[in-house]
Amino acid sequence: MANFKGHALPGSFFLLFGLWWSVKYPLRYLSEKVTKNPHRNHCYQRLDVIEGATKIIFALIGMLAEQFVPDGPHLYLYSGEQRNWVKLMNWQHTTMYLFYGLSGVMDVLTYSPLKVPLGMDRLMLSVAVFVEGFLFYYHVLHRPMLDQHIHSLLLIALFGGACSTMLEVFMRDNIVLELFRASLTILQGTWFWQIGFVLFLPLGGPAWDEDDHDNIMFVTMCFFWHYAAAVLIMLVNYVLTYCCIQKYKRSNGEIDIGLGIRKQKNDKSSHTALLHGSDEE
Amino acid sequence: MANFKGHALPGSFFLLFGLWWSVKYPLRYLSEKVTKNPHRNHCYQRLDVIEGATKIIFALIGMLAEQFVPDGPHLYLYSGEQRNWVKLMNWQHTTMYLFYGLSGVMDVLTYSPLKVPLGMDRLMLSVAVFVEGFLFYYHVLHRPMLDQHIHSLLLIALFGGACSTMLEVFMRDNIVLELFRASLTILQGTWFWQIGFVLFLPLGGPAWDEDDHDNIMFVTMCFFWHYAAAVLIMLVNYVLTYCCIQKYKRSNGEIDIGLGIRKQKNDKSSHTALLHGSDEE
Amino acid sequence: MANFKGHALPGSFFLLFGLWWSVKYPLRYLSEKVTKNPHRNHCYQRLDVIEGATKIIFALIGMLAEQFVPDGPHLYLYSGEQRNWVKLMNWQHTTMYLFYGLSGVMDVLTYSPLKVPLGMDRLMLSVAVFVEGFLFYYHVLHRPMLDQHIHSLLLIALFGGACSTMLEVFMRDNIVLELFRASLTILQGTWFWQIGFVLFLPLGGPAWDEDDHDNIMFVTMCFFWHYAAAVLIMLVNYVLTYCCIQKYKRSNGEIDIGLGIRKQKNDKSSHTALLHGSDEE
Amino acid sequence: MANFKGHALPGSFFLLFGLWWSVKYPLRYLSEKVTKNPHRNHCYQRLDVIEGATKIIFALIGMLAEQFVPDGPHLYLYSGEQRNWVKLMNWQHTTMYLFYGLSGVMDVLTYSPLKVPLGMDRLMLSVAVFVEGFLFYYHVLHRPMLDQHIHSLLLIALFGGACSTMLEVFMRDNIVLELFRASLTILQGTWFWQIGFVLFLPLGGPAWDEDDHDNIMFVTMCFFWHYAAAVLIMLVNYVLTYCCIQKYKRSNGEIDIGLGIRKQKNDKSSHTALLHGSDEE
Repeated sequence: MANFKGHALPGSFFLLFGLWWSVKYPLRYLSEKVTKNPHRNHCYQRLDVIEGATKIIFALIGMLAEQFVPDGPHLYLYSGEQRNWVKLMNWQHTTMYLFYGLSGVMDVLTYSPLKVPLGMDRLMLSVAVFVEGFLFYYHVLHRPMLDQHIHSLLLIALFGGACSTMLEVFMRDNIVLELFRASLTILQGTWFWQIGFVLFLPLGGPAWDEDDHDNIMFVTMCFFWHYAAAVLIMLVNYVLTYCCIQKYKRSNGEIDIGLGIRKQKNDKSSHTALLHGSDEE
Repeated sequence: MANFKGHALPGSFFLLFGLWWSVKYPLRYLSEKVTKNPHRNHCYQRLDVIEGATKIIFALIGMLAEQFVPDGPHLYLYSGEQRNWVKLMNWQHTTMYLFYGLSGVMDVLTYSPLKVPLGMDRLMLSVAVFVEGFLFYYHVLHRPMLDQHIHSLLLIALFGGACSTMLEVFMRDNIVLELFRASLTILQGTWFWQIGFVLFLPLGGPAWDEDDHDNIMFVTMCFFWHYAAAVLIMLVNYVLTYCCIQKYKRSNGEIDIGLGIRKQKNDKSSHTALLHGSDEE
Repeated sequence: MANFKGHALPGSFFLLFGLWWSVKYPLRYLSEKVTKNPHRNHCYQRLDVIEGATKIIFALIGMLAEQFVPDGPHLYLYSGEQRNWVKLMNWQHTTMYLFYGLSGVMDVLTYSPLKVPLGMDRLMLSVAVFVEGFLFYYHVLHRPMLDQHIHSLLLIALFGGACSTMLEVFMRDNIVLELFRASLTILQGTWFWQIGFVLFLPLGGPAWDEDDHDNIMFVTMCFFWHYAAAVLIMLVNYVLTYCCIQKYKRSNGEIDIGLGIRKQKNDKSSHTALLHGSDEE
Repeated sequence: MANFKGHALPGSFFLLFGLWWSVKYPLRYLSEKVTKNPHRNHCYQRLDVIEGATKIIFALIGMLAEQFVPDGPHLYLYSGEQRNWVKLMNWQHTTMYLFYGLSGVMDVLTYSPLKVPLGMDRLMLSVAVFVEGFLFYYHVLHRPMLDQHIHSLLLIALFGGACSTMLEVFMRDNIVLELFRASLTILQGTWFWQIGFVLFLPLGGPAWDEDDHDNIMFVTMCFFWHYAAAVLIMLVNYVLTYCCIQKYKRSNGEIDIGLGIRKQKNDKSSHTALLHGSDEE
């Protein structure tokens, strides 16, 4: 949907995931650091599965919204009568959501009895971001200059995020990469909202002159301010998490953070034991 | 051959290899995982040699077809009379096949007594894909927009695959990279068929308007649907392999998968012992 | 400030940091090498904190200068009366300094009790250089050819430096990467001065013809001469450091280099012990 | 020198180095493999120093040739009378040679008592190749299409080689990377000769039509044939080396290959012991 809601919806999805990650990863990192406990809490695997399921749900909501809004294609791709494609823009957005859905499926399968190789979930997430990037890249040709520029700035966040997620295939659980991914996801979320506000003026006001070079310059700068804001949000969440853990530690003498009950050895094969009585035992 | 068969032939080659890899790598991964046996079956080296030989045969078929079709160059490169190059398109395709042939030769040599360094086979495969990518890149300039676009989408699969194969030089037997390579090879195979159908209409029907922007948009999207399909095929093959191995395990109590008889230590130098009584012993 | 001082100021900042690094890293490397002491001197952590603070101060000076020069925006971003943006060029430069300031903050936090993951400081520095690169990239469109070219050469140093700093996230304390970063920072510093001299002629003289292709060619070549000079400076500093350490060693029999008193085990967690009685003990 | 000799000279330099490497690296690899001796022969360090010295000499020859050919700039850079730059093309070539000279200096210093960090030699070589690449990139703008294309193909070899050499900084003595570098260097050498033959017709014959698209297509293909030839040359040299070592082994029972007398532990610090009584002992 090339309107405000069509940008606010994915923007909110990305923002939610980004903010969640900016809490989850520091929490995991600091709780291990503070307890000097090298064992990984089992609950983080359960969280990954829930994350995967949430991705699938978000992707389904997005796909249904793109297809069945009043001016959507309603699953028609080609109109035989008029001999042309139906609402390709909505179909493209559906495609983007589809890959995030596939990424969610892979997240869930990683912890299923199927023993899908660790790393396939990160690879699929990376592919989903690359697909979004390439679709945007071809998407914005032949548009007004400001529209083209404001979308192409997104490509920096997308290809940066896709590459860093690809690295996570080989360096799983690297806290720096995870925080970087979180910050770029927040950036993507807030920038989708910004695009909506600039192009569709939901609050009214004068339209932006799409060919004014000064507007282009401001938008470029504004994109990096968003990133600076994302970094600050990350930092605040990190500090809050740190304080929580310190407080919890002082009151309990022991860290548990209310997330898991048992502790278990973080041996590589244990991740399959989550959802079923493992075949290996 | 700039016709339907000229795209269907390489498409079939890539599809065959992609599908084969999408069975072979999960089979190897799961049989090691299930038996908790870190030793590599000898048969996989024999398979690699057979794969290499198949590559050489496919490359020869491709080269001969490009040269000796009725409107081919029949090994003439320069026509002295007319002072011009003969059928350069066919020569370019011959060149692409040549590099896949070289990659096959390197595969075979890796397991020969020559002790060619492990990793040269992956490097040569990566180079072959890069060469195909660069030839396509220069190939499609000065063509109608749709023709150019449909080929340039292939570049995403090619350069992605070349980079991931290059990584395999340093991370040999990384299951995630191998599955990624398999999925991109399937994509390449099906996309060659799609190009053939779009540009040469083997089943008849109205020709595509090569300058319609909507067609471009649809084709872009369609490329990523092909990839989604490739991922699903991979997933199905993975699950089928998993079921086969589980069934086999239950009936035999022991895993052998009918592929190898002896098990042997996976020490690095053992790969030379395949085809000859090793000099080292 | 698109004038000579606006280029000389950041040029001096980069030059100072580059020169400092070209002394600091060889000093650390050689003192460890010569003493065969694998332990890291504590003082290098204190130096990192001081470096971070210096970055913050330089960034503040830069931001204040850009905002409050007589023809600066004085913190006004949008002029409601004239309905246009105010001095966007200065705002863009302010944005660049802002990210270096954030990088300084992250440097300081890395050695604070917050246990910010090691590597975040390098990531943030890399991001700051990337942001500078992207801003320059969009900055120079629609300018005379020479102006555009002389700034775009800087992009080579910027993106090269950003990538190499990104690598330092994963290969911390790699002396080769650190020296490479130092050399590119010196290059950036001297090139800012060169840009100032070419575009604003502070010493008078005839203006450069901005559309003469020969000038473009000379400037390209000149850029690489600057890099050759940077490499030579690095080499001279390296040799001087080497001689100092050898002299010191001969006179003391023991290396201390006047920097640190205690030696301490370089265990990964010890870096938090710098500024406070560590919680962990 | 934009003439045949100006391309044949660097072409010969690259060809010599490429061929030498295509013998040296298999020799080292196979002699270690066959003797199962993990210790590195001392002579390879001596060879590296000789290589560095040869690079310096070649670079000096190149620089002097570019400056003092009859139509060269004779070290004049700016003509005050005519207010223009003197022979910038020759100056650019001089700059390229300069960086290879610096790379040679770094090679020599690596094995000097200065303890220059291992890896700086590879970094400097990589930088030299990058500089050549960037200079070529800006060099060929505003030239006839064929001239531009034939030079830009070289960029593939240059940037590929620069990246792979950069990897060697972190994966020193990786045989695959070394052979890849050798093959790209041979390619560069033969391609320089090819450029000379195409553009300057040293043997006479009709000039190439510089705007004929077919010529462009042929040249593209021809570039990859050169690479196929380079791979075959590498393979032949590898096999010859293998045979030599096998023959030597049979006649001596022990491998020494006439290169070194003592064997020594390949501990990391030993590389400084080459040229002097090490300070460490």
